[in-house]
Amino acid sequence: PPAWDRAARPPRSPLQPPGLPLAPCRSFSNNKIQVELDESSGVAMMKFKSPPVNSLSLEFLTEFSISLEKLENNRACRGVIITSALPKIFSSGLDITEMCGKSVEHYAEFWRAVQELWLRLYGSNMVTVAAVNGSSPAGGCLVALSCDYRIMAENPKFSIGLNEAQLGIVAPFWFKDTFVNVVGHRIAERSLQLGSLHPAPEAHKLGLVDELVPEEKLMEKAAAVMAQWLALPDHARQLTKTMMRKAVLDRLVAHREEDIKNFITFVSKESIQKSLRMYMEMLKKKK
Amino acid sequence: PPAWDRAARPPRSPLQPPGLPLAPCRSFSNNKIQVELDESSGVAMMKFKSPPVNSLSLEFLTEFSISLEKLENNRACRGVIITSALPKIFSSGLDITEMCGKSVEHYAEFWRAVQELWLRLYGSNMVTVAAVNGSSPAGGCLVALSCDYRIMAENPKFSIGLNEAQLGIVAPFWFKDTFVNVVGHRIAERSLQLGSLHPAPEAHKLGLVDELVPEEKLMEKAAAVMAQWLALPDHARQLTKTMMRKAVLDRLVAHREEDIKNFITFVSKESIQKSLRMYMEMLKKKK
Amino acid sequence: PPAWDRAARPPRSPLQPPGLPLAPCRSFSNNKIQVELDESSGVAMMKFKSPPVNSLSLEFLTEFSISLEKLENNRACRGVIITSALPKIFSSGLDITEMCGKSVEHYAEFWRAVQELWLRLYGSNMVTVAAVNGSSPAGGCLVALSCDYRIMAENPKFSIGLNEAQLGIVAPFWFKDTFVNVVGHRIAERSLQLGSLHPAPEAHKLGLVDELVPEEKLMEKAAAVMAQWLALPDHARQLTKTMMRKAVLDRLVAHREEDIKNFITFVSKESIQKSLRMYMEMLKKKK
Repeated sequence: PPAWDRAARPPRSPLQPPGLPLAPCRSFSNNKIQVELDESSGVAMMKFKSPPVNSLSLEFLTEFSISLEKLENNRACRGVIITSALPKIFSSGLDITEMCGKSVEHYAEFWRAVQELWLRLYGSNMVTVAAVNGSSPAGGCLVALSCDYRIMAENPKFSIGLNEAQLGIVAPFWFKDTFVNVVGHRIAERSLQLGSLHPAPEAHKLGLVDELVPEEKLMEKAAAVMAQWLALPDHARQLTKTMMRKAVLDRLVAHREEDIKNFITFVSKESIQKSLRMYMEMLKKKK
Repeated sequence: PPAWDRAARPPRSPLQPPGLPLAPCRSFSNNKIQVELDESSGVAMMKFKSPPVNSLSLEFLTEFSISLEKLENNRACRGVIITSALPKIFSSGLDITEMCGKSVEHYAEFWRAVQELWLRLYGSNMVTVAAVNGSSPAGGCLVALSCDYRIMAENPKFSIGLNEAQLGIVAPFWFKDTFVNVVGHRIAERSLQLGSLHPAPEAHKLGLVDELVPEEKLMEKAAAVMAQWLALPDHARQLTKTMMRKAVLDRLVAHREEDIKNFITFVSKESIQKSLRMYMEMLKKKK
Repeated sequence: PPAWDRAARPPRSPLQPPGLPLAPCRSFSNNKIQVELDESSGVAMMKFKSPPVNSLSLEFLTEFSISLEKLENNRACRGVIITSALPKIFSSGLDITEMCGKSVEHYAEFWRAVQELWLRLYGSNMVTVAAVNGSSPAGGCLVALSCDYRIMAENPKFSIGLNEAQLGIVAPFWFKDTFVNVVGHRIAERSLQLGSLHPAPEAHKLGLVDELVPEEKLMEKAAAVMAQWLALPDHARQLTKTMMRKAVLDRLVAHREEDIKNFITFVSKESIQKSLRMYMEMLKKKK
């Protein structure tokens, strides 16, 4: 059984009688992400394990999308808890090395993978719970925002936000749409322009995360929340989720190629390349 | 004078000199709803009186729409307070018997009546105040959400919410639009997916109702709120209300026949019929 | 140096080394508005000085737009703080005398000037901070709402809001859109219908202003907030701002002539002229 399963009784499907023995877990794993599915509860645990900071490289994004697709197609899986296997960091966001000094073809492939991941996650039929057990800037924040529910470790050293503006870049419109759907227009406008990274307590106050719990209770709480969401009939819940998210999903689908072109034009600018290189230098020095 | 009039001085139109004697009330009533109009104040009191739970049957919806139309066309009427004449329940929402084992023609007629009521109430030129003096699930919640202002008895045993998902069904898009306009996208997304029924204090915290008062003060408060809204010139207030609600009203008007077809297709499914029958059995056993 | 500069150290651009002597300020002024640009910080101070109440007359609006245009085109200017040089009043809003007993041509010219000001201010590339040091009804509130950040003196005698409905008139759709983007749909719906003027503490609670400070700290705080916003790279911040505001700006641009026609039709009605004349009489008696 996975670690979180020892800490807390696994949530059971309300459709399953409580007396039955637990079915065996199915797990699969790749270089970047570890997945364990508890077929008795229908809940998968997905853990990012790409040191040092779970950055969303092309490889990571591809494996993330494949993992989600596998679970989505597995009728035994009804929900997924997303967390990090690394200490202090949930995900550092898009891997900047994928945006620096690469070919136009590479930029296109990379950006398509970012879009693909978001379309799968934001539009997932499964219940998705983010157990944010570390900092989560930029693309890491997007992953959390795309889930159905966000629980964060209440450590004020952990922060979360779409801080792209701080790097001299701009979050694309669908990052913004996802953010506005969670925190509303005004908070999004201010936070995006300032490129704010909100410490956990502030993130909770703004509604960016739904709940704070002590770090050691995070997995237990995630399992309890998952059980609450799984108590609803899947079909009605899924149709309701689609109704709420369809407009924003459709907008990217309708402008996907245009959005890729915009990304390539933007990231190919010498001024942006310079900003990104400076930022990478700064990160290296920090180590 | 109606009951609420004895408890509190009726609100007077600011256009009317305070010294004049009260004009006589006009009242009309049908099987389901009792209406009393105080022509001196321009305020009508509408009370649901369809035991046991004010469920929105085809007959109830039709009488509700007719009552609203009568008041709307009466130049002496400027506002309406909507409440229940039954203890503990405001309205239990759409009558499930209308959705079970009936003909396609019946489903179409029923759904058109639901749409009609909402279009009249959400788009009313009158000031509409909901005095929620009991629980108000599903369609009952929609009635409250469609008013200009919601006051609820502060009894934590009374709950309110769009709990359709709990029954295995899905609130239509215009229920959702109305809800989002009141509580914002995030709260609506979560509450609709979980099919939450929020106890009064929680409903107030989420903004689903505007105010809580002790049950015995509910009518007095509703009259005071009505007086505050009627202090504004009708014409400017009505144009402002239309500006705020037109987009959402127009969306149903534009997709009305499609929405009826969707309802029929959905409700005709054997799986949905089964869910609804199970729910009705459960309700019967509760008695 | 301007007055606010003596009270607080001017915010410095993060790109400028701190040791350098301050560059000389450039100022320009007209009948209605005084502007001082501190080229060392890149921050302009714009003060309304049109007694008795900084009402937005055609002349005021024209000078306001020209001042914004000058700053926008000045590469040394990155942000502007907008405040009043008069005690107790930020701006009383649109000048009602421009709407009373004038020609259709005058109404058209006036309304175009209102649109022009809003398009420039809401769409400004500069960081815009409103230091609201007095009451700010109607059009005055719109000016504040169009800035990036609103700080208000915490005096409960100062109030702010779109109170058009109180005068029997209706805020145009782009006033409403701007308001909804700040406070959300529900608060806007209620506040606009009631024509509410919110005392500063209530305005803060509703999110209409971002922060309250004691009046004597207002300029110091505005400078500190400006420094925080200017710490971001201009280009990324500007693109982000455009992304957030473009939909609402585009809507007026697309319907500008129609909006002018609507205004003329509305304001030309005898009933509206009467309301406005009564309101002006009331204001005169107040003096």
